[in-house]
Amino acid sequence: MNITAGQLLGQIAYPSDLRKLSKEQLHQVCEELRQYIIDVVSVHGGHFAASLGVIELTVALHYVFNTPYDQLVWDVGHQAYGHKILTGRREAFPTNRKYKGLSGFPKRDESPYDTFGVGHSSTSISAALGMAMASHYKGEFDRQHIAVIGDGAMTAGMAFEALNHAGVANANVLIILNDNCMSIDPNVGALKEYLTDITTSPTYNKIRDDVWHLLGKLPVGKRFTREMASKLEASLKGVVSRSSNLFEALKLRYFGPIDGHNITKLTDTLQDLKDIPGPKLLHIVTTKGKGYALAEKDQTTWHAPGLFDKITGEIFKKQVEKPQPPKYQDVFGHTIIELAEQNDKIMGITPAMPSGSSLKFMMEKMPDRAFDVGICEQHAVTLSAGLATQGMRVFCTIYSSFMQRAFDQAVHDVAIQQLPVVFCLDRAGLVGEDGPTHHGAYDIAYMRSIPNVIVSAPMNEEELRNLMYTAQLPSNQQPFVIRYPRGQGVMPEWRTPFREIKPGTGRKIRDGKDVAILSFGHPGNFVVEACKELANDDLQPAHYDMRFTKPLDEAMLHEVFSKFNKVITVEDGAVQGGFGSAVLEFMAAHNYTAQIKMLGIPDRIIEHGKPEELYRECGYDAAGIARTAREMLKSKITVIA
Amino acid sequence: MNITAGQLLGQIAYPSDLRKLSKEQLHQVCEELRQYIIDVVSVHGGHFAASLGVIELTVALHYVFNTPYDQLVWDVGHQAYGHKILTGRREAFPTNRKYKGLSGFPKRDESPYDTFGVGHSSTSISAALGMAMASHYKGEFDRQHIAVIGDGAMTAGMAFEALNHAGVANANVLIILNDNCMSIDPNVGALKEYLTDITTSPTYNKIRDDVWHLLGKLPVGKRFTREMASKLEASLKGVVSRSSNLFEALKLRYFGPIDGHNITKLTDTLQDLKDIPGPKLLHIVTTKGKGYALAEKDQTTWHAPGLFDKITGEIFKKQVEKPQPPKYQDVFGHTIIELAEQNDKIMGITPAMPSGSSLKFMMEKMPDRAFDVGICEQHAVTLSAGLATQGMRVFCTIYSSFMQRAFDQAVHDVAIQQLPVVFCLDRAGLVGEDGPTHHGAYDIAYMRSIPNVIVSAPMNEEELRNLMYTAQLPSNQQPFVIRYPRGQGVMPEWRTPFREIKPGTGRKIRDGKDVAILSFGHPGNFVVEACKELANDDLQPAHYDMRFTKPLDEAMLHEVFSKFNKVITVEDGAVQGGFGSAVLEFMAAHNYTAQIKMLGIPDRIIEHGKPEELYRECGYDAAGIARTAREMLKSKITVIA
Repeated sequence: MNITAGQLLGQIAYPSDLRKLSKEQLHQVCEELRQYIIDVVSVHGGHFAASLGVIELTVALHYVFNTPYDQLVWDVGHQAYGHKILTGRREAFPTNRKYKGLSGFPKRDESPYDTFGVGHSSTSISAALGMAMASHYKGEFDRQHIAVIGDGAMTAGMAFEALNHAGVANANVLIILNDNCMSIDPNVGALKEYLTDITTSPTYNKIRDDVWHLLGKLPVGKRFTREMASKLEASLKGVVSRSSNLFEALKLRYFGPIDGHNITKLTDTLQDLKDIPGPKLLHIVTTKGKGYALAEKDQTTWHAPGLFDKITGEIFKKQVEKPQPPKYQDVFGHTIIELAEQNDKIMGITPAMPSGSSLKFMMEKMPDRAFDVGICEQHAVTLSAGLATQGMRVFCTIYSSFMQRAFDQAVHDVAIQQLPVVFCLDRAGLVGEDGPTHHGAYDIAYMRSIPNVIVSAPMNEEELRNLMYTAQLPSNQQPFVIRYPRGQGVMPEWRTPFREIKPGTGRKIRDGKDVAILSFGHPGNFVVEACKELANDDLQPAHYDMRFTKPLDEAMLHEVFSKFNKVITVEDGAVQGGFGSAVLEFMAAHNYTAQIKMLGIPDRIIEHGKPEELYRECGYDAAGIARTAREMLKSKITVIA
Repeated sequence: MNITAGQLLGQIAYPSDLRKLSKEQLHQVCEELRQYIIDVVSVHGGHFAASLGVIELTVALHYVFNTPYDQLVWDVGHQAYGHKILTGRREAFPTNRKYKGLSGFPKRDESPYDTFGVGHSSTSISAALGMAMASHYKGEFDRQHIAVIGDGAMTAGMAFEALNHAGVANANVLIILNDNCMSIDPNVGALKEYLTDITTSPTYNKIRDDVWHLLGKLPVGKRFTREMASKLEASLKGVVSRSSNLFEALKLRYFGPIDGHNITKLTDTLQDLKDIPGPKLLHIVTTKGKGYALAEKDQTTWHAPGLFDKITGEIFKKQVEKPQPPKYQDVFGHTIIELAEQNDKIMGITPAMPSGSSLKFMMEKMPDRAFDVGICEQHAVTLSAGLATQGMRVFCTIYSSFMQRAFDQAVHDVAIQQLPVVFCLDRAGLVGEDGPTHHGAYDIAYMRSIPNVIVSAPMNEEELRNLMYTAQLPSNQQPFVIRYPRGQGVMPEWRTPFREIKPGTGRKIRDGKDVAILSFGHPGNFVVEACKELANDDLQPAHYDMRFTKPLDEAMLHEVFSKFNKVITVEDGAVQGGFGSAVLEFMAAHNYTAQIKMLGIPDRIIEHGKPEELYRECGYDAAGIARTAREMLKSKITVIA
């Protein structure tokens, strides 16, 4: 389907085209940009509500600032669709998030307008400040550096670290706080309440008006002299210092709050702020999903709704004929409730992913035992450790790639103290369309290097349930990692009775004699398929679902290496240092000498695409596994160099 | 030397003994406690100034609160010497930081008064909040939970994450902000300036007095009823809301600032606060090193001065006869200046360790190119990435164990974007007396699993210089890790001319034929010793200094595995997933089958002690390496299972 852009938008290839328009035409540009995003996303999928919320901001920024010389960093970046469309990528936009297509996030090698690759939250202020310090050092004093960050992302510690530095840095940085009260789920925490207070306070509105009044008196649209800027600064100081606010406490000049959907006000304000040197913060208030009524009403559902009918708002579900396996996330979400009903020591913690992780079920049912703590993985983990010291059995569910934010806390607060926190690492392995920033590639490697930590992965729903059951038993007194991928498992009938799985025990799925395939986690299902293929070729592969990278099932490995001289390991994680590497260490410790091939995420950055496309690219889909086995079995003698 | 405690202190084994004393006697307890710490630390070493700064607070806390039922978490923990002495460990205190002796930090398995193991900064609020939430859930509403955190530690993001949660949590937590303007070095950042503002502001002092006045009218020393507490809260609100401050913006009731050396005021205040439920913050102002004049004057030197004459203040230096090798840190500190004089794109970033890392030399000489950004590893790394996008060559120096805080930023902001940030990972390997929280054990494993990252380690000063030189050359366009241990290297004459070391090239130190020993980094020097020992036994070990774990020197490894069927790897890092593991992956990829032993930090938590003691315990000191080689060479045939 050919999607055409509106009349004005159709003329804009780059921001330089946008800047040729009159201010009065910007309204129409916004409308057309909004419509284009609705048209494309409804048919091609992607993040939705976030970009609609910053249409006016996007247009205003590129209209007022001299991008890409002026440097713009979008925090998280899933709101940057409008930015991409206005910066040379309108026609490519329907390839967004598709294999070999545009990234769903800003990405440096895609465009000079994408000054910094993003994906995880709360990096933008640090990055923009770095750019600003470099400009200052080089003497590029006219250069502007803008970070656009949501109020959700502002709760993560690194944003605060950056604010603490920005306030005293001699650098030209404008932080735009895009306050929409939402992450993917509604925001939580004291900061959110504070921002609500100030956006509704009459005092603040009075001050705000005074400031704009002052600004209004100053000449707009031409560069200030240093003298004029410093005069303005002095005038503002008198007004603004009356309002001692959090950002000013951190030495940032605070402006706002203003309506982030008023394009005229936005352009005027940005124009004014452009001429004030040094670090400053503009607080704008927006509505996530703005302009698409259903999205405004249910922002979580419309964060990334999948394909939908843009007229009726019907979100298309896949047509299914028979019962489908559940998502691993839902198995987690329902199972933790079942366990918590039996064990009153169980609590659940999620940093800002109640919907994504499905902890929301427990939060609804047991609000005193399940908590969304906001975007703050570090705090989430140490809080869990604190709870664990009091005998609580905490399931701390964090996406694998976000767990990277709390690696130190896992070592320092959990593992060294041997506290039995359960880490449910969601979205482990290749996540698909979100791409390299979100792939949960490294957790096997970084978790298994830490003493005292159990590292497990279920091959299906039942295994996930049983690992969760095992982790909360009094017999377990260690940190316990359970990693599983995004999306569906394989068992439509998954509510099986609980059964303990002793740490360090695998299970044999299939007997064989030519080659042993050892899998860790969900890719075991690919191995099952591969074994069928190989059996068709009269080959006899054995398959072991190892279940634990740490501790390894040593008895099983002794069996494997006594019986087989060809072994394949399969994991949905980085091969360097991962599960296969742990098997190699076992081999070295016991002087085994089998030929071994390790399949998993290779040592390069894997881009975005459908998971199946990426598994294939990495060579550990069923076909890849079978191919590797056939190659190993082609030569009758083991090659020993 | 027998050190005796003063008259009152000598009677205090536990806080219950302290609580038998009258308030008037607490002055004397403080004096005696201070003297005891001076007496012991001057002779036995350890952290010094931090504990002196919180003597009064320590005594007041244990006097007022019912520890250990009331739970006290000391942030960082090197200020907890007074706490240890008052909680059953006075007589053991001279073993502090010694092998098999007391830990220099609070540690759960050492005492029930040590509610949470600490070492890295900024964990205390999260931990205490977890404990408080557990108490609330259990209905222990009278239980108190106190986090004592310095203003330096408050700049780290995770402290802010915890504040953001604490403010809205229904939990009984008292945060004591110990404001002394210092980390190890003087604090930096907007927060520090803000705290200075409010401690000197007459408005704040007025409000402070009003609050104390109100508190003074209320009955002290007995439990408030809920009604009384809520009445007090309401009264306070009227007073405190006049002062809109940063902590109140985060919904914490703020009290202070008060003099943290006034024991009477402290005990009275804590007594009052004890009866106010919910989250609250008390701001106290202290002097690091209080009571020891030299320490008050030069707080950085006296953070951990080593042994000294307590009367004259002379800090003892080791008597040396010939020129000593420099510390790796100083080699870094002087070399970055040499390089920066040649390459104007070089900048230096340290998160709060200008003295420890020796970046201070550059900060003094080139203040526009070297920055201490405070305790904020996450921001430090992403800031470096932002600078790197502008062509700057940033040396970001971070202690290995603190780098764990910025693992995600290394992946997400540096490696995925392939920005040539240089990570100088200081204190890599076993650090000695600081123990398990500070051992830099995991960096080899977690860094080598990330694509695009070069992972190197110098065996001596010259190698460090040349790796630094190589990392900043235009030919390097990748993230470049250089890891080195705490303390002295081996080359008294170290200012050698720069020479490029091509990534992925090792060097042969010694030819041999019986066994090949592959070392990574500084432990190569232990291998040199071991080889001498082995040669005395007529064994002929070869020694290769691999220099890079990533990329490996494949040509060299082909030589090794073609020539040797017995190989030992030696690294100052966790064996699981580390350098040896990388060598195993090479072997698997090329079907090599040598017998291989991997020496390094084993898969358990290694406690504190002198580095030599710990190397010996882990078996990779010279004797351990030689022993392993002898064992491998005892059997004439390779064992193949």
